Amino acid sequence: MSLSHTSSVSDTQSQNDRVLGPRFREKITSAKAAARLVQPAATVGLSGFGGANHPKAVPPAIARLADEQRAREGHHDYRLGLLTGASTARGADGVLADAGAIAWRVPYNADAELRRQINDLEVDYVEVHLSRLAQQVREGYFGRMHTAIVEVAGITADGELIPGSSLGNNQAWLDEADQVILEVNSWQPIELDGAHDVYQNLGLPLNGTPIPLKHVNQHIGSPHLHVPIEKVVAVVLTDLPDESPAFTDPDADSRAMAGIILDFFEHEVKAGRMPADTLLPLQSGVGNVANAVLASLATSQYRGLNCYSELIQDGMIDLIDSGVVGFASATALALSPAKFEQVKKNIGFYRDHIVLRPQEISNNPELIRRLGVVAMNSMVEADIYGNVNSTHVNGTRVVNGLGGSGDYGRNGYLSVFMSPSTAKGGAISKIVPFAAHIDHTEHDTQVLVTERGLADLRGLSPVRRARTIIDNVAHPDYQGALNDYLERARAKGGHVPHLFDEAFEWYARFERTGSMLPQ
Amino acid sequence: MSLSHTSSVSDTQSQNDRVLGPRFREKITSAKAAARLVQPAATVGLSGFGGANHPKAVPPAIARLADEQRAREGHHDYRLGLLTGASTARGADGVLADAGAIAWRVPYNADAELRRQINDLEVDYVEVHLSRLAQQVREGYFGRMHTAIVEVAGITADGELIPGSSLGNNQAWLDEADQVILEVNSWQPIELDGAHDVYQNLGLPLNGTPIPLKHVNQHIGSPHLHVPIEKVVAVVLTDLPDESPAFTDPDADSRAMAGIILDFFEHEVKAGRMPADTLLPLQSGVGNVANAVLASLATSQYRGLNCYSELIQDGMIDLIDSGVVGFASATALALSPAKFEQVKKNIGFYRDHIVLRPQEISNNPELIRRLGVVAMNSMVEADIYGNVNSTHVNGTRVVNGLGGSGDYGRNGYLSVFMSPSTAKGGAISKIVPFAAHIDHTEHDTQVLVTERGLADLRGLSPVRRARTIIDNVAHPDYQGALNDYLERARAKGGHVPHLFDEAFEWYARFERTGSMLPQ
Repeated sequence: MSLSHTSSVSDTQSQNDRVLGPRFREKITSAKAAARLVQPAATVGLSGFGGANHPKAVPPAIARLADEQRAREGHHDYRLGLLTGASTARGADGVLADAGAIAWRVPYNADAELRRQINDLEVDYVEVHLSRLAQQVREGYFGRMHTAIVEVAGITADGELIPGSSLGNNQAWLDEADQVILEVNSWQPIELDGAHDVYQNLGLPLNGTPIPLKHVNQHIGSPHLHVPIEKVVAVVLTDLPDESPAFTDPDADSRAMAGIILDFFEHEVKAGRMPADTLLPLQSGVGNVANAVLASLATSQYRGLNCYSELIQDGMIDLIDSGVVGFASATALALSPAKFEQVKKNIGFYRDHIVLRPQEISNNPELIRRLGVVAMNSMVEADIYGNVNSTHVNGTRVVNGLGGSGDYGRNGYLSVFMSPSTAKGGAISKIVPFAAHIDHTEHDTQVLVTERGLADLRGLSPVRRARTIIDNVAHPDYQGALNDYLERARAKGGHVPHLFDEAFEWYARFERTGSMLPQ
Repeated sequence: MSLSHTSSVSDTQSQNDRVLGPRFREKITSAKAAARLVQPAATVGLSGFGGANHPKAVPPAIARLADEQRAREGHHDYRLGLLTGASTARGADGVLADAGAIAWRVPYNADAELRRQINDLEVDYVEVHLSRLAQQVREGYFGRMHTAIVEVAGITADGELIPGSSLGNNQAWLDEADQVILEVNSWQPIELDGAHDVYQNLGLPLNGTPIPLKHVNQHIGSPHLHVPIEKVVAVVLTDLPDESPAFTDPDADSRAMAGIILDFFEHEVKAGRMPADTLLPLQSGVGNVANAVLASLATSQYRGLNCYSELIQDGMIDLIDSGVVGFASATALALSPAKFEQVKKNIGFYRDHIVLRPQEISNNPELIRRLGVVAMNSMVEADIYGNVNSTHVNGTRVVNGLGGSGDYGRNGYLSVFMSPSTAKGGAISKIVPFAAHIDHTEHDTQVLVTERGLADLRGLSPVRRARTIIDNVAHPDYQGALNDYLERARAKGGHVPHLFDEAFEWYARFERTGSMLPQ
């Protein structure tokens, strides 16, 4: 028995009707009581990916416990280790960071206050390829997981958990944690039941078997999450919306890059490397540029495209509506409240066009390679040889984190990295002699795109890559200085020519003069 | 019908008996005549991996044609593009480089003269993850392949090709080239027939299916290579041995690192992360350090280990003899002539313990991850955050190339990188503030080993990684300077602290003073 779309339960009924399993009902308690079950130095696994489906009641209750202790005693004991799928939102990372309750954080963060604490070295932050974190937790890299706090949409009479707007690492956390707190959120659309595909039979090495996924739209697992009732120490009822980040409308640079990428798709179709009708499965990273690429597809001639990605955002729903996208696989549905209402109302339609998977599957190298995914991700900067920095401004201060860019970029059939050619009104060049932080090496970056054009690096030696990058995607204001660097380095020789006494000088010049431009 | 171990043909019979297919016999010709069929600006795919199984007659004949033209006309027209499995030897890369006949080279080289030409920017050199090259050629990244020159051990009456001591990209080159020259080498042990597993059903994306390999010792393909007779323009008979590189006996540093790694295996067994009896499948890179690790296994208590690697070298045969290794999968058998004789004489035994696969399979990310391979590879240097340089001394001059280090390092269950802590009698530290070339980012390097100890980086944030590396694997002479760099960088803040005005200064100091040691 399930709370599926054929069930009598709808979101207009009382929150309590979301918990049908009788042994789970017995554990219903307040957020504050649940928060008290989390030890102050616990390692905690939260649900949540891209602002979707994080627990919304217990983390703020923990933050309040910390604040209360501090008010009482002048300090508090909270030093949590926090693991998630990816980013949560203000209501989880944010409030806990505000309370100073986070000691370490894995694998991704997008909260501004927590970012400050990470860059001020107050919080230990470990970026991990999103596909690999669950396995690393199983192997014990982060010690025992004391508590999992997982938000779900409901609990069936049989005690199965109906997932919400993301899957992330939820099943892994339910498996690994010593104790489990469930948040049952009646805002989460129970109508999505049946659109999840929990495949968790990944086993340990040597017990590994091929993952049987051959097509983007295939279901290979269970629609529900599972947890032994003995581990569940609290069930908390909530009714709070997701806080997925909003996107700005595409600006001129983003529209230019999107147009360049569409032209490139046509070029690849003509070369016989992509099917003319459906291209190859697309992955589109987080951010405004990636969003603009999706938006530009809306006016294209393509129909029935497949997406194999992390996030389904508002723009993707529009593409499904228009038939441009035939099917979208992801691990999270990060939608605005209005879009969510639209999806809920037409769930019969969308359930045939969407599947949510655990991030071990959505980001799985085996599958990304097998399916031939075209990976399109933003970058902070690239160097003249095509090494890409996805994460650290000026090489030291992290923005968000690695996320899935390595999972897709390394294993995709094609990996495209995108950025405007300059930042800060031209004072910063996104093409530099030597990237101050490298997340993706020249061996894994095949195409760079800026508003100036596209650098197709496939099959090129380092010096040819450099010329292609400087000529095609660097801003004209910086082409002279980049060519000067390259030519003087070439005169010294070496397969990858560099001048190490000035390789990083552009950053120092910017600090000194406010611009990377040669004076 | 095949020339298998049950056939009447042995290597004591005439070379001509290795070519049973009548339509192939008609094409037997001289190396010089075959060489004339290769256009001077052709893109050529050679067999060959790790000094094993490269064509030994036609490349020298091409070099002679170039030399003759130069003697005659003062210059020659030879500007070949050369693609292989991995390294060949003097008899292929070497003689062609000597003749100045190579314009560009993909994906790996170990020849000294060709290395000089690459670093002097006379030859374009493109390093590619070894697992990915065949796919990139199929996709046309390197244009049409005009000619494949593939060495085999024999040709059956049915026209099937019996492979020699490596598989590499041989089937891919036979598939992709416009014309094919076969070298049938009677030195190649025909007795190996049945030990190859040519799985080539990789298809293009969207047609991809799971690769059905679940165990290191499984056969999933054909024992033979296939080529349409219409494409074969010449068959050349040879009788020349492979030129696999010799290893020196392990020195004290290598023995120390091997001991450290064996201790680590015990630690992992105790932590429940590796089976006590057979550990996990081992991959061991090229070089003396990797060889020393294998040698040290000989005196261990392990029995029935599995290896899933690129190369089977002499040491591996000894481990199979003693029962320490139960099964070894690779793409090349790079043995000394004496070892090869031993293998040929006891082929019935070794055929149960060895399989050779195409490098798309031996180095396949899907399989390396599924099997849980422990990847152990040498490095040029690492920086304090665990970014690893595998290829370029001082960041500019390539040694050999990326090879399979990324295939295994990125996808292995564990990735270990190894090097003595210093070079040039202590004048160079292998642990530096910022690696001058990065092949493997901090997200893909989990364990560093030097003769000083082991840095276990799993689950650590950047600053913790730095402290672990400096304390455990840096040489004591450099620990002070590295700690000083780290602490002053930390004072400036940032998730990955750096001082960019001095990050590369150690290289300049070495150039200036002959030592990286602070003066």
